[in-house]
Amino acid sequence: MTSSELLTKLDFNKNNGLIPVIVQDVNTKTVLMLAYTNREALDLTMKTGKATYWSRSRNEIWVKGETSGHTQQIIEISADCDYDTLLYMVDQKNNACHTGSYSCFFNKLQ
Amino acid sequence: MTSSELLTKLDFNKNNGLIPVIVQDVNTKTVLMLAYTNREALDLTMKTGKATYWSRSRNEIWVKGETSGHTQQIIEISADCDYDTLLYMVDQKNNACHTGSYSCFFNKLQ
Repeated sequence: MTSSELLTKLDFNKNNGLIPVIVQDVNTKTVLMLAYTNREALDLTMKTGKATYWSRSRNEIWVKGETSGHTQQIIEISADCDYDTLLYMVDQKNNACHTGSYSCFFNKLQ
Repeated sequence: MTSSELLTKLDFNKNNGLIPVIVQDVNTKTVLMLAYTNREALDLTMKTGKATYWSRSRNEIWVKGETSGHTQQIIEISADCDYDTLLYMVDQKNNACHTGSYSCFFNKLQ
């Protein structure tokens, strides 16, 4: 399948027009965060090469790092087997989390 | 914060009682899949040490690998900064994807 065929198969219906995006650091392989994208944010991400999401709390397009400078350069984008989740491999500038932590997953439960 | 305090902070409200779970192979660091859990599936996962999810398509508790034998032994569970996403580090037996692929993220978009 070509990437434009893949793009048409993406399933934005399971999450009210949004698809969850797993963000992984291409250098360390650390999982940094989970974000959400809509069609527009995905188009912008692919055009600019900068990870751009839909902010569910602010209800707006969110260019990651636009204010903090902690941008994510896109290295690779993959969709999963049923086209309802994306994985972005990124080159993370500094820290991904708004708390100042490198990764958002710093709360160990077990 | 202790893990039982963390458990009470988990936010199951943003996704109709479900929390998305990113599943990563502890050995290869490959992101394998995104699944969903409810409180009951999380309790079972923590008790048994075997990744157990909520199947949105079958609408039931789903012990990963119960029929295929491709189980996921839990190594570590982390919650993210706002407690609405989990990351499971697992020891994956064989392949994670129902298509027979090792990881679900085999559709390269970019």
